[in-house]
Amino acid sequence: MGAMGEAFTQLLIPVAALVGIGFALLQWLLVSKVKVSADSDLNNGYSDRLIEEEEEGIDHEDVAAKCAEIQNAISVGATSFLFTEYRYLTIFMGVFGAIIFLFLGSVKGFSTKSEPCTYNTGSLCKPALANALFSTIAFLLGATTSVLSGFLGMKIATYANARTTLEARKGVGKAFIVAFRSGAVMGFLLAASGLLVLYVSIHLFSLYYGDDWEGLYESITGYGLGGSSMALFGRVGGGIYTKAADVGADLVGKVERNIPEDDPRNPAVIADNVGDNVGDIAGMGSDLFGSYAESSCAALFVASISSFGISHDYTAMSYPLIISSVGIVVCLGTTLFATDFVEIKNVSEIEPSLKRQLVISTVLMTAGIAIVSFFALPSEFTLFNFGSTKTVKNWHLFFCVSIGLWAGLVIGYTTEYYTSNAYSPVQDVADSCRTGAATNVIFGLALGYKSVIIPIFAIAIAIYVSFSMAAMYGIAVAALGMLSTIATGLAIDAYGPISDNAGGIAEMAGMSHKIRQRTDALDAAGNTTAAIGKGFAIGSAALVSLALFGAFVSRAGIETVDVLTPKVFIGLIVGAMLPYWFSAMTMKSVGSAALKMVEEVRRQFNTIPGLMEGRAKPDYATCVKISTDASLREMIPPGALVMLTPLIAGTLFGVETLAGVLAGSLVSGVQVAISASNTGGAWDNAKKYIEVTLIFSLSHSILQTELS
Amino acid sequence: MGAMGEAFTQLLIPVAALVGIGFALLQWLLVSKVKVSADSDLNNGYSDRLIEEEEEGIDHEDVAAKCAEIQNAISVGATSFLFTEYRYLTIFMGVFGAIIFLFLGSVKGFSTKSEPCTYNTGSLCKPALANALFSTIAFLLGATTSVLSGFLGMKIATYANARTTLEARKGVGKAFIVAFRSGAVMGFLLAASGLLVLYVSIHLFSLYYGDDWEGLYESITGYGLGGSSMALFGRVGGGIYTKAADVGADLVGKVERNIPEDDPRNPAVIADNVGDNVGDIAGMGSDLFGSYAESSCAALFVASISSFGISHDYTAMSYPLIISSVGIVVCLGTTLFATDFVEIKNVSEIEPSLKRQLVISTVLMTAGIAIVSFFALPSEFTLFNFGSTKTVKNWHLFFCVSIGLWAGLVIGYTTEYYTSNAYSPVQDVADSCRTGAATNVIFGLALGYKSVIIPIFAIAIAIYVSFSMAAMYGIAVAALGMLSTIATGLAIDAYGPISDNAGGIAEMAGMSHKIRQRTDALDAAGNTTAAIGKGFAIGSAALVSLALFGAFVSRAGIETVDVLTPKVFIGLIVGAMLPYWFSAMTMKSVGSAALKMVEEVRRQFNTIPGLMEGRAKPDYATCVKISTDASLREMIPPGALVMLTPLIAGTLFGVETLAGVLAGSLVSGVQVAISASNTGGAWDNAKKYIEVTLIFSLSHSILQTELS
Repeated sequence: MGAMGEAFTQLLIPVAALVGIGFALLQWLLVSKVKVSADSDLNNGYSDRLIEEEEEGIDHEDVAAKCAEIQNAISVGATSFLFTEYRYLTIFMGVFGAIIFLFLGSVKGFSTKSEPCTYNTGSLCKPALANALFSTIAFLLGATTSVLSGFLGMKIATYANARTTLEARKGVGKAFIVAFRSGAVMGFLLAASGLLVLYVSIHLFSLYYGDDWEGLYESITGYGLGGSSMALFGRVGGGIYTKAADVGADLVGKVERNIPEDDPRNPAVIADNVGDNVGDIAGMGSDLFGSYAESSCAALFVASISSFGISHDYTAMSYPLIISSVGIVVCLGTTLFATDFVEIKNVSEIEPSLKRQLVISTVLMTAGIAIVSFFALPSEFTLFNFGSTKTVKNWHLFFCVSIGLWAGLVIGYTTEYYTSNAYSPVQDVADSCRTGAATNVIFGLALGYKSVIIPIFAIAIAIYVSFSMAAMYGIAVAALGMLSTIATGLAIDAYGPISDNAGGIAEMAGMSHKIRQRTDALDAAGNTTAAIGKGFAIGSAALVSLALFGAFVSRAGIETVDVLTPKVFIGLIVGAMLPYWFSAMTMKSVGSAALKMVEEVRRQFNTIPGLMEGRAKPDYATCVKISTDASLREMIPPGALVMLTPLIAGTLFGVETLAGVLAGSLVSGVQVAISASNTGGAWDNAKKYIEVTLIFSLSHSILQTELS
Repeated sequence: MGAMGEAFTQLLIPVAALVGIGFALLQWLLVSKVKVSADSDLNNGYSDRLIEEEEEGIDHEDVAAKCAEIQNAISVGATSFLFTEYRYLTIFMGVFGAIIFLFLGSVKGFSTKSEPCTYNTGSLCKPALANALFSTIAFLLGATTSVLSGFLGMKIATYANARTTLEARKGVGKAFIVAFRSGAVMGFLLAASGLLVLYVSIHLFSLYYGDDWEGLYESITGYGLGGSSMALFGRVGGGIYTKAADVGADLVGKVERNIPEDDPRNPAVIADNVGDNVGDIAGMGSDLFGSYAESSCAALFVASISSFGISHDYTAMSYPLIISSVGIVVCLGTTLFATDFVEIKNVSEIEPSLKRQLVISTVLMTAGIAIVSFFALPSEFTLFNFGSTKTVKNWHLFFCVSIGLWAGLVIGYTTEYYTSNAYSPVQDVADSCRTGAATNVIFGLALGYKSVIIPIFAIAIAIYVSFSMAAMYGIAVAALGMLSTIATGLAIDAYGPISDNAGGIAEMAGMSHKIRQRTDALDAAGNTTAAIGKGFAIGSAALVSLALFGAFVSRAGIETVDVLTPKVFIGLIVGAMLPYWFSAMTMKSVGSAALKMVEEVRRQFNTIPGLMEGRAKPDYATCVKISTDASLREMIPPGALVMLTPLIAGTLFGVETLAGVLAGSLVSGVQVAISASNTGGAWDNAKKYIEVTLIFSLSHSILQTELS
């Protein structure tokens, strides 16, 4: 038994979750002080406007009205897309939930008799029918929470975008705070509600399960599955939406028509801005929630069949949840450094400030993990390890969680180095554009490939240490460690698309070049943080997948997965192919949708008289519809590939081949994911770097001409 | 014992090899009938010129003289590059040979005493010092043969390129035959000399080893290592050379200056054409030779410790060599279909004719394998299988070899489908260019990713069947099966760069548009066959690597490589990362060298007066030097990564981690290789498709204008 009592634990978790939710609401309140409407009071909620020298057009009613109008269009587009998507997903949830119930139930013929436990031999466990029922309920809860997380995130982001634009009139620092606070709303809401729903579910389930922790926590794993299966569709659907709109808008607008990004004359501009919200916010929110739920559930399940599960040590059992609780408190403190303790006065301070968030949260969290590990855990206990048991000390678990946390920081910093235009990799990519698109493609792809090296070593070390110290439980809590600062991670991640939208609104509302420059600076930092967010998502997904892989192997009763047997090896090589197949599908979908978008945008430019001159309005809705239809239709095949492969491989070739497939797709998918994500981030920022440098050299030469 | 006697085997192998070499020389003789020189007799070796209606400028001395001059420049450039490269490689060979000798010798303290055999227990084997010495000799022989294969291939290709151009004046069919014959010279020379050197080495070694087959065939494996380590450098160095020159020449010439491909005014044009020869011919030749040598050696080694090795059944032991011998004879017959039995009259017949080569050789070879398997092998025997033995029947081996062969055909056809502009994938990529470079990149990458699916299933099935039937020996002979038609494979592969060069020479010599159209058609088919050749190289490399992996695991005494242990898993994930690291290096090298090339080409256009008008000659030599220097300098780091990784991983983390690294890099590398190769092939042919379509629609609209 650790020093921490059960009563304290029972209090700590819900209180931390509620504090997190309260903090999120407080941030929301602060953001809402910026008024976006035509009939707002003229000083826009600020009484000290006289000392803000930089303000421009602050009492210009038109601008606020225009911003409100654009914000509304984006919000309506995003909401309508998500509602349509969720209608599909509800059907899917129902069908998949039924399948889970039937599969789990049928294993023992929907038995209603209690049976001897699998691991805690000697005790009686609840009947199979109950497990099937509760697993299905947990699945639905996870799926619903995931959907809600994404939806709320999108709502906040579309609420914050125009406010960020308006604040940019007062300086980059004010705008940064609004964008970051809004990100924090999403981060804390998601982390806290994920924890709270899980905590409450466990308690409600335990009313039935009582002392049968094995059955209880096995049912709870449905929560993780629900979260991550929604994440799959949210990510793919949202991703296709945003990229189709983005590519389509830019190709005609910027390349052919030579109008600026986010110009209101571009028919695809609303779809583009909607895309940021449904793809990068709602999709990413669901994704990280999925990883978080999976790692918590994997850790809880392994714990339930270990010594503290069998001896019913509630506090030690809840270790994963306590880590998350402490994470919320740590992130709360960290956020204040960005919004209250330090003020940003200059464009160049944005990225360091965001990076500081990562370091501060990691350092504070390390201390938090140490405290939790020493007080919540017994000094020694045994863990389940592929059929045998493994003796583990509490400081082992401190190392497992911490190494996951620090591996996340390393991944974050590496991603930043490779995708920020402050360093040579992106600058080299920008430089290579001097010789055209071809060298740009070569350098960009090479950058992505190279950026894989350090993260993979970081993940490998984390796996080695945590696996060696605490077997599969170690891996699961390492993943949890990486996600323990998820509130901060999501805040800096969501900050990106919000800034991107803010820039779009500034352009569309016809605000001055100075404002646009500020939002662009926010956005460039946002591209980097979005890549960092993806890095965390990928890194934690790799660890979580490994933990789940271990859980699968334990449950399937496989003793070894020997590469030297043909059935495992072919699984490995086919598994390594799957990420390519998946990517081929999604990229082709984006390409086809983008082609359609391009044609529609061209058609509008050619057929709507006065559009280029700004005298006529484009038909935004048709472009939104193209992205919506494409993404909803095209998210099915890649989703089906992911869901069906395990079923087909397992049924036709057996569990060993399936284990090979899972391992192969894991080790190959991580590489594809990191390299593609960083190549994309780098290209995006190289573009921004060139634009900024061009503007700089242009103004420089104008200055020189004037001087001479 | 099989029905085939030892005496027959002893005769069959060298005779087949000599027939192959004779056939190659005959083809060379036929190619040499086309005269390329200013002082050639006017009818250019053809007495029936009057019936060739299509001929143009055939008695135009200037054209032949110009072709001779260009051919000479290309040949001199290629020779000088290869000599420089080989000087580096000789040093490397010496150092690496010494390391092999010292490592192998020191294991048992340079013992000169005979020792009990490892596998054939009870017998005495030769001392460690002798094994070290003979392994080193075999290594040097393999390396030398590899270098010679590449060099001879390049010589033939640079001999044939201008001849193909000149023959194109008489029609596409004549030109095709010259190009294909020249490819055949290389294919047969390489296949036959590889076999002959191996056969002679075994016989010379056996003078010392006598009955110690275990020692004999273990030493012989050095031959494979020598071949494949030269291939590594040849491929990387040649690849950087050709791509830097290609990208550099096109970016300034085609994109900026709007002059045609291979225009003589382009300073990088000679470097570009040299590149095709050193990269796609010499590099590819070394590469396929390396795979061929490795698979033969792996099969021989496993056989030597199996029942026919221990019972000294010479014919059964030589099964891998007999398969190769039959392969040469089969390919000889196949070649006649392209050069003698069927004549090409139309551009559209080129690709079908090359494809037919694959089918014919595969069908004939299947019969050949059946005959060899039933006559050369005992009906039942035992094979070594990771410490245990496995009973195998002769028809099992027939299936193992055949499935490798047919998997090769499937890979070839899939590659053709994804890279030929006759099918929708390339046409879709071409179509996506309507919306610019961005969609083109998306579609191209998606195509490459998608093209991985079928080849991986083909490889997986081949692995499963051959592994299940005959363990590691099955894998080795499956690889050999895929490479058994290597003479034909190399012929159609080498045909590509020769046609590419022929087009370049036609352009540079200022030949008419009609000629250029013909060589372009040859070249488009060549891009596809080059991709097919790469597909074979990748597929067979995957099988060979697996066989070698098995040999390593057997030798290292590892019983299982369990994915569920941390040290194997981290090996797997880090191994899967290595192809990305390697690719990042080589792509960055190509990018940097291309940038330099672009700058030099621009400098020449800007500073040499009259260059654009064709009044002054560019400085070809500087461009050749840029490519040469870059490729020689840049081939070291990727080479070092490949050579040092096993040493470092094995020394620091042990053999299990190393096994993981090898398996991981194998399953991940195959995907990267296939997708990158097909994306490249598809982009190249999409370009050609657009050019052809443009010309077609242009002439169409001119026609319409004239008609109206």
